[in-house]
Amino acid sequence: MSLSGDSTMYEAFWKSVGAEADTLIAGWTSMSYSSDITNLCWFLEPQLAHQIRRLHKFVGNAVAGVDRFIIVGTGSSQLIQASLYALSPPDAAEPMSVVSLAPYCPSYPLLTDYLQSSLHKWAGDASKFTGYNYIELVCTTNGPDDCDDPDDPKREAILREALLSFSDRKTVHDLAYYWPQYTPITHRADHDIMLFTPSKSTGHAGSRIGWALVKDRAVAKRMMQYVELNTMGVAKEAQLRASKILQLVCDAYEDPERDIKMKLFEFAAEKLGNRWGKLKKVGSASSIFTVPSFDQISGLFTVPCFTMDVCYFFEDTSSHRPAFAWLECEKDEVEDPESYLKEKGIVVRGGSRFGIEARYVLFSMLDDDQIFDLYLQRLAALS
Amino acid sequence: MSLSGDSTMYEAFWKSVGAEADTLIAGWTSMSYSSDITNLCWFLEPQLAHQIRRLHKFVGNAVAGVDRFIIVGTGSSQLIQASLYALSPPDAAEPMSVVSLAPYCPSYPLLTDYLQSSLHKWAGDASKFTGYNYIELVCTTNGPDDCDDPDDPKREAILREALLSFSDRKTVHDLAYYWPQYTPITHRADHDIMLFTPSKSTGHAGSRIGWALVKDRAVAKRMMQYVELNTMGVAKEAQLRASKILQLVCDAYEDPERDIKMKLFEFAAEKLGNRWGKLKKVGSASSIFTVPSFDQISGLFTVPCFTMDVCYFFEDTSSHRPAFAWLECEKDEVEDPESYLKEKGIVVRGGSRFGIEARYVLFSMLDDDQIFDLYLQRLAALS
Repeated sequence: MSLSGDSTMYEAFWKSVGAEADTLIAGWTSMSYSSDITNLCWFLEPQLAHQIRRLHKFVGNAVAGVDRFIIVGTGSSQLIQASLYALSPPDAAEPMSVVSLAPYCPSYPLLTDYLQSSLHKWAGDASKFTGYNYIELVCTTNGPDDCDDPDDPKREAILREALLSFSDRKTVHDLAYYWPQYTPITHRADHDIMLFTPSKSTGHAGSRIGWALVKDRAVAKRMMQYVELNTMGVAKEAQLRASKILQLVCDAYEDPERDIKMKLFEFAAEKLGNRWGKLKKVGSASSIFTVPSFDQISGLFTVPCFTMDVCYFFEDTSSHRPAFAWLECEKDEVEDPESYLKEKGIVVRGGSRFGIEARYVLFSMLDDDQIFDLYLQRLAALS
Repeated sequence: MSLSGDSTMYEAFWKSVGAEADTLIAGWTSMSYSSDITNLCWFLEPQLAHQIRRLHKFVGNAVAGVDRFIIVGTGSSQLIQASLYALSPPDAAEPMSVVSLAPYCPSYPLLTDYLQSSLHKWAGDASKFTGYNYIELVCTTNGPDDCDDPDDPKREAILREALLSFSDRKTVHDLAYYWPQYTPITHRADHDIMLFTPSKSTGHAGSRIGWALVKDRAVAKRMMQYVELNTMGVAKEAQLRASKILQLVCDAYEDPERDIKMKLFEFAAEKLGNRWGKLKKVGSASSIFTVPSFDQISGLFTVPCFTMDVCYFFEDTSSHRPAFAWLECEKDEVEDPESYLKEKGIVVRGGSRFGIEARYVLFSMLDDDQIFDLYLQRLAALS
């Protein structure tokens, strides 16, 4: 699930790949609603399914064998809604409560409630939930309390697990960010419903593609029913391009002669590593430090540091390089840090949108170089 | 709105067009969520908007000037739901009643009710509705009572108008079939919300594209809110191909040197005209005729005839050539005509799915030649 805007950082990579990444679609092809009527997900292009399984096997981030159903969706927004539909009993006396640990994706409450469905309703921060019937949306991304001080009681693993385990446990794992550039691949995730999207893995947000890996056939069928009724399938053109893009990502690693420049995860990990280094440098250049495990910018904002973990993909011990940085405002006199930074020409989103305090603001690490460097200069100039 | 399966009839046309109809999408392009942030519909590709307005101007079937908002959707299913969302007050005491004149599209009741929304609920056949607050879905397609006998009290215009006019009139015109191959273009439609899709106009169902022409800005904004929350936009790849396809359709008419074979509406009108002729011939070959204005097949099923109208597009008086034929079963001993024909190897859909009597069945005129001819042979062999 997208926490913010575009991942324009990735355009430079795909430009460098060039014409190999082109997709050609003839006018008379892919005209049908269906792609493979023998498959439970009958509108899923078989070549996309193949590349999805190939990619997960190769990256090692999720169990995606042929015993897992793949449901393709029009972006992960649609698949989250399909999951809520699938996990909510159609004849319950009360709507299912939908919860997520704050900071959660700001669209979760909106997606749950905009149609005023009697199937489900938003019930807020999972850490404050006390009921028994619920669906927990588990999003793997960093929170403002992630830091490298193992004694800090607020320390959380960035690769989150479900928080709750009351009653008949129903969880949806939104793993949009569980890719090696963002977080060490510590194990192959194997949850009931796992959601992925190229929006954050390859940067192709405009394709509106996502996929769910689903264990249970009955759940997969209910998700299919949702996507059928909602949009009668998923654009073939977007599936074909996603297939081509994923194929190239995989190909680059299988051919040892390939230029390192063609390796997406190395490109993105290096870029993000540099950016986190720069952000911390802007912090260290400041004269005031108040929290040992955080770097501080101009005495106004602190930047979290991260734990190290062994990444099985890069075969190395590496830090987390999250797609977003939470900046914590240290000055009480700044009442609305989001607006304060906006006035300074730095676009961030305030914590209250994510169910946490407004003194935290979310800063994107995925803009293109020009925007990122500009925002960094402006952060450094804060006083 | 699709009433049935694929329009595979159109594949032959696009094959004959060849490589000119190819769409090439480079890997580093169209990666962003947005297409034109100055537009109310910020994810609509400007070139698609241009081709949509050009096509409507040229065909003369709908008012689509720059004073009409275009909202692009993931198929017209999504746009119908966006319309229901836009026209249902968020704070009403009761859900809005959604009605449509039978035979309505079988997905209308499902789309209205699957999320058990408190915004709207399905209220059935518009001709039986007696309330005051409602949304009427008006689908332009033929009913089983359309015939060429002007004295027949059941005669209906195929290009339907809204049936109801109680209270604060809210209508959505689903004009998927208001194209010159299906029905004479008698006037430029100019309703509050008009929905179109390439699924039936060019045959590209797999693209999951649709567009709404909307008069009112506030309604257009609510529809946008729906599409944003539902799928965060529409696949760029599908929009780019739709744009290319619509451009070629228009180009073929603007260049007088173009081969007639390149003209989509002539291709489809001729094909459908032939097919309706063949279907009637199968009827006429039968020895039993009981209803004067209908042709009858083997004494079992009758086929409706249609009124003639002046078509401003073809500049000719022409008959309707609907995408579907309603066959009426004349024998009481056939209890379930849909199953009866299925046993004979003819795929149709029974009237009860469309809110009318089960003795009517819907027969698609849009399959490819092989399937159409096969079904026709099987119809002719009925006894």
